[in-house]
Amino acid sequence: MAQIRYLTAHLAQEIDARLMSPSDGAFSLDQLMELAGLAVAQALAASYALPRYRRVLVCCGPGNQGGDGLVAARHLSHFGYAATLYMPKPGNKDIYKRLHKQCLNLSIPSLTSESDFHASLSSQDVILDAIFGFSFLGPVRAPFSRILPALRDARLPMVSVDIPSGWHVEDGPVLLQSEEGEDLGQALNPEVLVSLTAPKLGVRGYRGRHWLGGRFVPPTMAEEWKLNLPEYPGSAQIVELPGPAGL
Amino acid sequence: MAQIRYLTAHLAQEIDARLMSPSDGAFSLDQLMELAGLAVAQALAASYALPRYRRVLVCCGPGNQGGDGLVAARHLSHFGYAATLYMPKPGNKDIYKRLHKQCLNLSIPSLTSESDFHASLSSQDVILDAIFGFSFLGPVRAPFSRILPALRDARLPMVSVDIPSGWHVEDGPVLLQSEEGEDLGQALNPEVLVSLTAPKLGVRGYRGRHWLGGRFVPPTMAEEWKLNLPEYPGSAQIVELPGPAGL
Repeated sequence: MAQIRYLTAHLAQEIDARLMSPSDGAFSLDQLMELAGLAVAQALAASYALPRYRRVLVCCGPGNQGGDGLVAARHLSHFGYAATLYMPKPGNKDIYKRLHKQCLNLSIPSLTSESDFHASLSSQDVILDAIFGFSFLGPVRAPFSRILPALRDARLPMVSVDIPSGWHVEDGPVLLQSEEGEDLGQALNPEVLVSLTAPKLGVRGYRGRHWLGGRFVPPTMAEEWKLNLPEYPGSAQIVELPGPAGL
Repeated sequence: MAQIRYLTAHLAQEIDARLMSPSDGAFSLDQLMELAGLAVAQALAASYALPRYRRVLVCCGPGNQGGDGLVAARHLSHFGYAATLYMPKPGNKDIYKRLHKQCLNLSIPSLTSESDFHASLSSQDVILDAIFGFSFLGPVRAPFSRILPALRDARLPMVSVDIPSGWHVEDGPVLLQSEEGEDLGQALNPEVLVSLTAPKLGVRGYRGRHWLGGRFVPPTMAEEWKLNLPEYPGSAQIVELPGPAGL
């Protein structure tokens, strides 16, 4: 089996667009986000089992990755985890609002201020980082220029979705830098990563526990792009990837 | 734990409407159908494992249950099953067409004539019955008045979604009767049933293997309707229900 392909930002965007084109993949965003968020929740549960890990702080950005986080928070709540949401900049798309409403219906609390966020870090077991996805282009703007360093410095188990927030989607971990050029220190270093559809170039050297989700890519598309996806076991929605070459 | 509640047709409709009301459950049909169809596919895979069972004839009605069947067919194909679709009356809603296109993208074949359907029965391992759901009100109209007896008489392992097609949603198995009052014989008798959200009154006496899917009902709603849903294990999307009382 050839090695799995690591996607450029351009190819990741093309695959997303093709999957959702009515004349091509014909998926709705609702479908893909539901399957992605479920995969993220199941990977977190497989990595940090109940009852040892129960309190999960789900940090959501304003875009589609934040939507994945909201879906994951809902599933985690059904699994028995105590999820708390933190959406420093809630998305304004209709789907984002619906996904948030679904969380409210499960009585999942949201942190509403940055000080609440900082205060809550000491009472969490796991962080789910769903802030920035593969379309993030630095630098890190406020309030994330304060939030990312705080998440890093909390030294809690962390699960990142697709690409750890603040990493360059192709170059990987880079020093965090604010819009004003201020050095914000080291990149996030999550113990667990959940790549969706296929891993991105920036995580080639990632050495933590690495899951793949997004079992919806038609084999013809996977073949066209030579993704060399691994086989998912049975009817599972996630598969663990082997460590980086040479480990 | 009190016994699980069996739903009237009225309550089943109310729950669906509430789950999808923007001001209440706030789910989209795409989300619920995706989770329902995935649960159906996983229940089939848990009941009829590869490689012994590989060829699955997925029979889809024109409504939302047919949509669940199309989603299930797609996931089954990803799991490694050889799914074949039979849609005697394809639905004309946009979502139905998109779900069918997603199956076409996986090269899942469709039977296009009734004679092909009859001929194909001898080369299938399992039937997935996603023809009629809880909103079905007899009698059985053509072409289903020919299709349901053929499915029954094929004596293949069968998985029904929510309520075996042709059963009365509240009264359970009734003799099949055509629109013209013709007696079409015994009801379907599937070995496996996948109830979605909560089982319907008509399957109270069902004695086969019984799964529940639809892990998306907010506990507050489950409490309001006293559904007494069982706990799903871990991060699974299906749970097996115990046999009927007294067994």
